Amino acid sequence: MTDQISTKKSKELQVQNVILHLTQGITLPENTVDQLITGTPSQVITGIVVTFMPTHYVIEKAIQQGANLIIAHESPFYNHHSATDWLADDPVYMHKRNMLDQAGIALFRCHDIIHRYNPDGITDGLIQELGWNTYLSQRTADTDIVVFPKGTTVHTVAQQLKERLGINYVRIAGNPEIACTRAAVLVGFRGNGHVTIPLMQNEQVDLIIAGEGFEWETPEYIRDAVQQGTSKALIMVGHAESEAPGMKLLADRLAIAFPAVEVSFVKERPVFEVI
Amino acid sequence: MTDQISTKKSKELQVQNVILHLTQGITLPENTVDQLITGTPSQVITGIVVTFMPTHYVIEKAIQQGANLIIAHESPFYNHHSATDWLADDPVYMHKRNMLDQAGIALFRCHDIIHRYNPDGITDGLIQELGWNTYLSQRTADTDIVVFPKGTTVHTVAQQLKERLGINYVRIAGNPEIACTRAAVLVGFRGNGHVTIPLMQNEQVDLIIAGEGFEWETPEYIRDAVQQGTSKALIMVGHAESEAPGMKLLADRLAIAFPAVEVSFVKERPVFEVI
Repeated sequence: MTDQISTKKSKELQVQNVILHLTQGITLPENTVDQLITGTPSQVITGIVVTFMPTHYVIEKAIQQGANLIIAHESPFYNHHSATDWLADDPVYMHKRNMLDQAGIALFRCHDIIHRYNPDGITDGLIQELGWNTYLSQRTADTDIVVFPKGTTVHTVAQQLKERLGINYVRIAGNPEIACTRAAVLVGFRGNGHVTIPLMQNEQVDLIIAGEGFEWETPEYIRDAVQQGTSKALIMVGHAESEAPGMKLLADRLAIAFPAVEVSFVKERPVFEVI
Repeated sequence: MTDQISTKKSKELQVQNVILHLTQGITLPENTVDQLITGTPSQVITGIVVTFMPTHYVIEKAIQQGANLIIAHESPFYNHHSATDWLADDPVYMHKRNMLDQAGIALFRCHDIIHRYNPDGITDGLIQELGWNTYLSQRTADTDIVVFPKGTTVHTVAQQLKERLGINYVRIAGNPEIACTRAAVLVGFRGNGHVTIPLMQNEQVDLIIAGEGFEWETPEYIRDAVQQGTSKALIMVGHAESEAPGMKLLADRLAIAFPAVEVSFVKERPVFEVI
């Protein structure tokens, strides 16, 4: 009897099987943010939704599709470490939490894991989405260095980013008309000065393409560099805009790894509009 | 002889006199970022430039105007604590540093000080620049709560912000068409979730107006709240855009306090343009 049950179960894909697959060969830091935030490891998977941000809308979509495992890059609870004590009485949190619990959704955070793939799964997804693989010059843990064809300007790079990522605007510091040969691509919150400024000198990049970063660091360095007569520029594409393609790529890979369940990527609209 | 010199000196305004004036009655935190970054306390002042960000351009302007004291809200060196060890070999830093030293500029950081005025000198400057004094409902250390006339929408508030601050765009999360009565105004980097989210519940504000904040916190909370059927919105105006008016107000006040020297506010263009 026990043997029969365990045989049956072994044929059914459980949440822990997917987590084991995702974490294979990865050493996570002690303070990792990656965890099963809701649900249980032994839950049998009815369908998988992969997303960048597990918003209320994305969870609704998962429920509509009959999926009970959401793999998300960011936290559902408006802070990096998914702390909930400060939100205990918050109605937006409670509504979202109840929806997750009542639908029996297992929500797994895949942030540190995918950034530790080699190459970084998020940066790789962005480069593939942009069709820039042939421009790749160098890959490090933090950044991809790309070399553009002669005659490329910051403006043309910005247009490519907008078209290929399907976004309405980017923010630019520096002069958009300058020619740019070498660029560093930095996803998510890697747009801060301690990451970008050494790259500009050590790797001689003239363009930083980043997701998000403090306004008083990289953009102000670029502004000063331009005022001093140097050709430098920064394109800030948005945190989600820079990282969602990596989660889409993960969805494609999971669909191949687990053909018995439906795996879909759910895209959100940009969180900001510019007026 | 000694007496004569000290009598003469006492008539000349020194950097330390202005610092004493600024810090009067203020208790700074132990890890304050406010300090004399270049120059000496005993330097005789030839003119004062007040600014938000002491960019290369602002320093050039000060030198052109014959001013040798710059009072700035932010750091000249692309990091909040003005660390320079990591920049020792950086050409942009070296160029800027040499310009400051060669021109004998005293650069004083006035960040924690002005935020500790009562009311907060930066928030006060923004409210005055916007002409919103009559809308004021409540002032705390972090935020001003304003109550708008009936019929005000997020869209009309955004238009007012753009016109009165002279900026080309704002970023909006949530629905710009909703009516908004109560708004919380949060300058600089006060746009993060641990500040904004409790305000939305405890103070029942339906609009957050902030300078800058993590993209995965407040905007995502607003997005979920709207998806749940609540009327909430966020306008992100930019860090500098929200804080420069407070430094302009400080310049006006210093001009009255020190009529013997020329005090001017130097404004920068927005560090980002949107394309």
